[in-house]
Amino acid sequence: MATGDEHATPPLRSDAERNRERVLAAARAVFARDGLGASMASVAREAGVGIATLFRRFPAKEDLVAAVFADRMDAYAETIETALADADPWRGFTGFLEKVCAMQAADRGFADVLTMSFPTAKPLEARRRQAYEGFVQLIDRAKASGRLREDFVSKDLVLLLMATAGVINATGQHAPDGWRRVLAFMIQSYEAPARAPLPDGPTDTALYRAMLSLGSARSPSL
Amino acid sequence: MATGDEHATPPLRSDAERNRERVLAAARAVFARDGLGASMASVAREAGVGIATLFRRFPAKEDLVAAVFADRMDAYAETIETALADADPWRGFTGFLEKVCAMQAADRGFADVLTMSFPTAKPLEARRRQAYEGFVQLIDRAKASGRLREDFVSKDLVLLLMATAGVINATGQHAPDGWRRVLAFMIQSYEAPARAPLPDGPTDTALYRAMLSLGSARSPSL
Repeated sequence: MATGDEHATPPLRSDAERNRERVLAAARAVFARDGLGASMASVAREAGVGIATLFRRFPAKEDLVAAVFADRMDAYAETIETALADADPWRGFTGFLEKVCAMQAADRGFADVLTMSFPTAKPLEARRRQAYEGFVQLIDRAKASGRLREDFVSKDLVLLLMATAGVINATGQHAPDGWRRVLAFMIQSYEAPARAPLPDGPTDTALYRAMLSLGSARSPSL
Repeated sequence: MATGDEHATPPLRSDAERNRERVLAAARAVFARDGLGASMASVAREAGVGIATLFRRFPAKEDLVAAVFADRMDAYAETIETALADADPWRGFTGFLEKVCAMQAADRGFADVLTMSFPTAKPLEARRRQAYEGFVQLIDRAKASGRLREDFVSKDLVLLLMATAGVINATGQHAPDGWRRVLAFMIQSYEAPARAPLPDGPTDTALYRAMLSLGSARSPSL
């Protein structure tokens, strides 16, 4: 039955759009449940499209990942902006950590995105770099306020997210809030004054290589 | 060519023994590299035996896991005994945490064993219970010495091992010592006096269910 606005969205274009939306929704659900290790085949199955259709639309898994997580990355970057706007730098800093971990817990795929690197997914990586710069400011502000220990560095965020991801993956649905206690311990250890020196931790290059290799380990699977 | 001691080990028994040793060595290598998610088929392949032979000897994956990790569990229990014998309770406690994390980093399979439960692998679980009782004493001693915060509980060890496993899995060979910085943060947060209260964390039941479900998720795979 014809309705007044049927010609507002040309049928052909609208089909393609709907198809794309269906694939993205399916990929979002599959990645949220199984992480980025989920196969392209399982995304195609969930979306009810053929694998060839999926690959025509998203030639590489990175393209699909970038499209699916664009809005999550936006939310992530916004979380940093909100934290930077907090009048209390320490509250901004710790509140940001809590929000990011909650985002991890809500979506295994996004938890993977946060600790992996996808060099060919340019917009995703641009957003990550922007978020990173904001996080460096967040650190500087928290240090200037005297509440964050001086030897805290930006890669400690990556290490923290790897640790909370480990807890989230292991406790799963049986103890979905298990990460909160671990994060609370970590935040107390970040607080100035430092109780003792720390080992250096990985170099930036080594950590980047690890993120890169995690990213590519997730990519080739069908 | 006959040698003087050839009848000391009857050929048949010795073949069976050698076969068993070869399977265990193969399983040890495969689990160390890939964790307990590795399939029975990949263990059989690595050992150069048929899958039927492997299952005749070890009817369930739990049996194989228990046999492979018996000596690691012994070493784990001994580490606790050593820690309990330390004249300085805090040094004993923190030294134990460092040794256990180093054992995780050296063997992905053992890292899995530490945060999973295998109810049918009786000797393994008996050893774990024994180690657990030793760890409770270690906590009590460290609290009595005034160095460990009062709200630290035994399940914080499980949460810690889940967190360090996350770091170890993610940093892999590129930054194999990454966990050391995370552990150093955690240990500083365990130290008395506590800087702030903590959220309760999962109940014992919830955490046990999580370990149980991780264990059984690793088991059925061929």
